[in-house]
Amino acid sequence: MSKKQLKYFDWYGRGGTIKLLFKLGNIDFEDVIVGFDTWNEKKESYGLPLDQLPVLVVDGITLCQTTAIERFAATKAGLLGKCALTDAKGDMLFETISDVRKKISVGLVGKLAAEFPTEPGTFYLKDNTQENKDRRAAAMRENYKKMMNEKCQAFDKILKMIQTNKDFCIGNELTFVDIQLVSLYIFSKDVNVGHDFEKASPLTFKTAMNIINKNPKIKEFVDEFQASGKPCTGLGKLY
Amino acid sequence: MSKKQLKYFDWYGRGGTIKLLFKLGNIDFEDVIVGFDTWNEKKESYGLPLDQLPVLVVDGITLCQTTAIERFAATKAGLLGKCALTDAKGDMLFETISDVRKKISVGLVGKLAAEFPTEPGTFYLKDNTQENKDRRAAAMRENYKKMMNEKCQAFDKILKMIQTNKDFCIGNELTFVDIQLVSLYIFSKDVNVGHDFEKASPLTFKTAMNIINKNPKIKEFVDEFQASGKPCTGLGKLY
Repeated sequence: MSKKQLKYFDWYGRGGTIKLLFKLGNIDFEDVIVGFDTWNEKKESYGLPLDQLPVLVVDGITLCQTTAIERFAATKAGLLGKCALTDAKGDMLFETISDVRKKISVGLVGKLAAEFPTEPGTFYLKDNTQENKDRRAAAMRENYKKMMNEKCQAFDKILKMIQTNKDFCIGNELTFVDIQLVSLYIFSKDVNVGHDFEKASPLTFKTAMNIINKNPKIKEFVDEFQASGKPCTGLGKLY
Repeated sequence: MSKKQLKYFDWYGRGGTIKLLFKLGNIDFEDVIVGFDTWNEKKESYGLPLDQLPVLVVDGITLCQTTAIERFAATKAGLLGKCALTDAKGDMLFETISDVRKKISVGLVGKLAAEFPTEPGTFYLKDNTQENKDRRAAAMRENYKKMMNEKCQAFDKILKMIQTNKDFCIGNELTFVDIQLVSLYIFSKDVNVGHDFEKASPLTFKTAMNIINKNPKIKEFVDEFQASGKPCTGLGKLY
């Protein structure tokens, strides 16, 4: 097995799903935590393809793009790539979740740009006082929650079409999209980007709970993350 | 081989890549053209998972989400799923292209919403005169082109990292992401959503040209589409 190095910030964000996939596949990797306080000054020195994290260094190549890395980890863990139609059913739900989250994020940044101007090309506030940071975090939180609660109903629509066993999204074994539901659950409990998961998409919520509670490795991962007190994003006090 | 039915509008949009993948894999499918003029009244009757096209009906299930369908078609055509690391390298570039296009689209809709108000929940203009349609199309066109020209440089950055043979993105044979470059080229030539592909990302452009010109099936597909005079999107006069 080739040596792998995952570089990411010290929150769940876009690295959490990759770490859970590696755990499920018993795949060793070096977990490199990048400090956010020195990120802006140091990022040039990391040799990143697009100035973005996470990256996975494997076989001498630095892979970027979260979805590319997640798919790689899922394939290595045996949770993707066995059957094209199974993967396609899972991708329907995965793409729907990704779409909703991306549209909300991009839309919110635009919506809040006038009220909370940032330094050009960054997410840093021009008015960088703690009070203004808290105000933006609160505005993001409320808007995100409202939009997720509205748009998450799509997840249940898709899941109803593909599910045949209440313990998994597709078929009778764990696949990549099940792990996405675990991360969706973890995000839903975060104070800054949480939403009413159970109310907004009850079938997806119940399935996530079954996935977590019936797989000891996943349960252990969720419990450990929640006990760590780490946030899901860098929003709020961290910026 | 199971029977497949692809339902989409009569423009390139999100269906073109799927059709090219099926052609390359010699995969038979029924090409069902959905009329855009009656779309709003009839869409309930199509039994679509998310009121969106394209969908692929296969083995009694209606698959939605363009990327899910594209990946399914690419896997069936032998252009994905052979090597996890090859797929990951391709996905880096594919996700970067998707990201840029999605961010521009979502951002533009928000940016132009105040100037061109639409009927709630639709893309139809409240002021539905041809003059106003043309004005919105022009505003979309100019903004889209400007943003694509700026952001496409990321494609060359990624391609430089992964390419070893100028005729393909990865390795020495055709893969899924090569087909994405073909579609990117076709879009770049469209009057409404075109951009200066050669200037904005010269390496990606040259690679796209090599992919098209050295594969007779791809060349035939591109020539046929361009000769058809069909647009790449429903923007402009169609709405």
